[in-house]
Amino acid sequence: MLDRIANILQQECNLLTSDLLVVGVSGGPDSLCLLHLLNSLGYQLVAAHMNHKLRLEADSEAMFVERFTGELGIRFIGTEQNVQSYATEHSFSIEEAARWVRYQFLFEQAEKEGAAAVLVAHNADDQVETILMHLLRGSGLAGLAGMAYQTLPNAWSDSIPLLRPLLSMRRNEIMQYLSANNIVPAFDPSNLDVTYFRNRLRHELLPVLESYNPQIRQNLLRQSHILRDDYSALQALVDEAWRSSLISQETGYLAFHRAGFVGLPVAIQRFFLRRAVGCLLPGLIDVGFDCIERGRQFLHEDRSSGRVNLYSGLWLVCEREVVWLTFSPADLPISNFPALTPGEIITLGIPSLVELNDGWILMVEIPADAGIAINQSAVNIDPYQAWLDVTALPEPLLLRSRKPGDRLQPMGMNGHSIKLSDLMINLKLPPRARKTWPLVCSGDQVLWVPGYRQSGTAAVTPGSKSLVHLTLFRDFPA
Amino acid sequence: MLDRIANILQQECNLLTSDLLVVGVSGGPDSLCLLHLLNSLGYQLVAAHMNHKLRLEADSEAMFVERFTGELGIRFIGTEQNVQSYATEHSFSIEEAARWVRYQFLFEQAEKEGAAAVLVAHNADDQVETILMHLLRGSGLAGLAGMAYQTLPNAWSDSIPLLRPLLSMRRNEIMQYLSANNIVPAFDPSNLDVTYFRNRLRHELLPVLESYNPQIRQNLLRQSHILRDDYSALQALVDEAWRSSLISQETGYLAFHRAGFVGLPVAIQRFFLRRAVGCLLPGLIDVGFDCIERGRQFLHEDRSSGRVNLYSGLWLVCEREVVWLTFSPADLPISNFPALTPGEIITLGIPSLVELNDGWILMVEIPADAGIAINQSAVNIDPYQAWLDVTALPEPLLLRSRKPGDRLQPMGMNGHSIKLSDLMINLKLPPRARKTWPLVCSGDQVLWVPGYRQSGTAAVTPGSKSLVHLTLFRDFPA
Repeated sequence: MLDRIANILQQECNLLTSDLLVVGVSGGPDSLCLLHLLNSLGYQLVAAHMNHKLRLEADSEAMFVERFTGELGIRFIGTEQNVQSYATEHSFSIEEAARWVRYQFLFEQAEKEGAAAVLVAHNADDQVETILMHLLRGSGLAGLAGMAYQTLPNAWSDSIPLLRPLLSMRRNEIMQYLSANNIVPAFDPSNLDVTYFRNRLRHELLPVLESYNPQIRQNLLRQSHILRDDYSALQALVDEAWRSSLISQETGYLAFHRAGFVGLPVAIQRFFLRRAVGCLLPGLIDVGFDCIERGRQFLHEDRSSGRVNLYSGLWLVCEREVVWLTFSPADLPISNFPALTPGEIITLGIPSLVELNDGWILMVEIPADAGIAINQSAVNIDPYQAWLDVTALPEPLLLRSRKPGDRLQPMGMNGHSIKLSDLMINLKLPPRARKTWPLVCSGDQVLWVPGYRQSGTAAVTPGSKSLVHLTLFRDFPA
Repeated sequence: MLDRIANILQQECNLLTSDLLVVGVSGGPDSLCLLHLLNSLGYQLVAAHMNHKLRLEADSEAMFVERFTGELGIRFIGTEQNVQSYATEHSFSIEEAARWVRYQFLFEQAEKEGAAAVLVAHNADDQVETILMHLLRGSGLAGLAGMAYQTLPNAWSDSIPLLRPLLSMRRNEIMQYLSANNIVPAFDPSNLDVTYFRNRLRHELLPVLESYNPQIRQNLLRQSHILRDDYSALQALVDEAWRSSLISQETGYLAFHRAGFVGLPVAIQRFFLRRAVGCLLPGLIDVGFDCIERGRQFLHEDRSSGRVNLYSGLWLVCEREVVWLTFSPADLPISNFPALTPGEIITLGIPSLVELNDGWILMVEIPADAGIAINQSAVNIDPYQAWLDVTALPEPLLLRSRKPGDRLQPMGMNGHSIKLSDLMINLKLPPRARKTWPLVCSGDQVLWVPGYRQSGTAAVTPGSKSLVHLTLFRDFPA
């Protein structure tokens, strides 16, 4: 058993014998076995115990663990936490709350000690039961793959891994190891008040399944092993998609390219959305399939903007080709829109280059050849480019944001003019962006709403002589 | 229900209403429902029924199906097959044999009729039971994903798909549809002698699982839907690996690049090997995990050649960078080795270009600068290149295959000579290739075994004046 574990610690957990490890120790057989094994293999250890104050024996168990580690010469760190009040406060079940504060404590200690990893003692039987619980919930590949030897549980740390080296050891192997080493655990886990559901599973469902296939446990473990590798191969695709589609990730929101997302295989879209939600809601919460599918469907609809409530308080906001995931759509940064500061008016030199916010640039050029420019203008389908005939302009070209009463005579609408505010609504220009959106004007006349529409006023005609070519583009920082 | 099915036939099965379809009809509720639905939706149908002659009622059921289709104006094709003898002959179980000959019949009819697809009537309850059976066997992602709406079962056809449009319809929905349309099936499937195992699963295990989660069936179906998409995303990676690593695929063998395989993610390696085995053993046979892992381990070992028995009679043969999967290693084509025809002797012009078999080319060059060539020779690590000092050669350079008594004095072994046949064994030159392997000689003296060793005779020294540069390479056809 020592050899098997030594191998797993190296191969699956990537540990060096010189590493300092924080080990979660309850005093039950699994964690004592793990601690004893690690100690025999020469690792530097810190044994961390949390007294949840849930059972009468809790205090004596804490003392037992302290004494046990002392005898092995292992450093002990103990703490107490009233889980009951934490559960009430965060509307967790007692079990969820205990788990949450325990891991928080373990990772805090690991950070403080500069440890290489946090280790816990889940065994092969725990693994089988976990997989079955996930199966009964229908939780997909990640759930059916069960727990991993190594994970990075970003709810508690973004650099220290959580390791479970006993995952392939059966409960009875652990008991044998303990008795061979004269170790008597603080408590018998079969007497423990594990949840009713898990207890029924262990003592009732597993024997039923074994009557169908006596190898069911080994089969589920082997399957978990295979599925974990399948899951890894898919996650590599998600990593790739994440790298190429994520625009920004900040506290409270993240943004990604819609086109990149929509082009992914369906399975990768689901994992991508789960990862995105996980970034904003780290920890215990597992969003449901319906929620993910609602998000996917929303992003596939043909729209320039809109929003959908993905999960209590979490919104998916679509703004043209950019998708935001956020708790607070009103607080999204405007950095991805071109914007002027309120009241700003910029007179446009011809030619000139005007740097706006966040890499947005307005370029004003004089076309080298009027004939070619007239042709280009006639077939232009890019709303971020415009050609103007500046011959008859009453006032110099300027860049400003909208004013009350602004109107536009959209090109091709026979001089019919509409209110700019209505146009912005109709064109679904994101509400947050309307007030500061740059407009190319001549005095009061709005000539071009970059990215949207050009006015018929100053539009190029076959006879135009004095032309200007305008381009609004974003020079993304590398 | 008609709308749901119409939608599935379009979206999931990619059918056009004008398509001609062969439908497998047993006379039970599922297949009658499917036939009636398809007929109502206006598809062109051929109803195909196989009388397995296994039950007393089999003949009357065949007559019933013929009458039913006749009343709907659907063409009927019936056949009889004694499954019992087929099973004995192929050592199949009765159930496997019945399934095999039934699908063979359905696809034969489809080929003959030029049909767009073969349709069968598995329903959502069949799906749940199938998934559970796979789970109890621990069969991995493909098994847990269950049956698909659309598959290409290459055992029976390489172009006609097998469709299962009723996969999301519950058994009771089907019964309701039948009674609403006054259709009385030929038999009650609950009285059918389905296998003992499936019966226990349906009547015993599923109710137990429902006591843990009343939604278990819906959850397993939803999970199957998700896992199927996960599976597709992985299969796209396998397709990619297959395209880039497969060298050739013929009856009885296939070949792929070892380096390409070893570089794949573990999960994709497994699917790749399964697909390779599936090409040689199409149909029912599902190779076990151990067999796949044995193959993977073999391919990861550091070796230039060798073989391993993957599955009864099926060998994985490694020859340097090429891996063969074959039933008969002795019969592998030699096209990937350089080879001379028996007895062939080619006098080598200096310079010259000699075309051998299958794109292999021996190039004989005079180096432009003797000094540079001497340096290159001194640091050469490519066994497919050699530099010779031809000043003192007794006879012209020639290319021939080995003769009895051939010996070589390997460079760097102080003139010690060994038998060429022993050298070939020691260097693990593939046995099939030894007899025809091209050797660069001068009369009886072997100077170079391309790809392996150069002789100390005629080796370049710092004072060499008259040099020849030899390269053996393969000009792969595009």
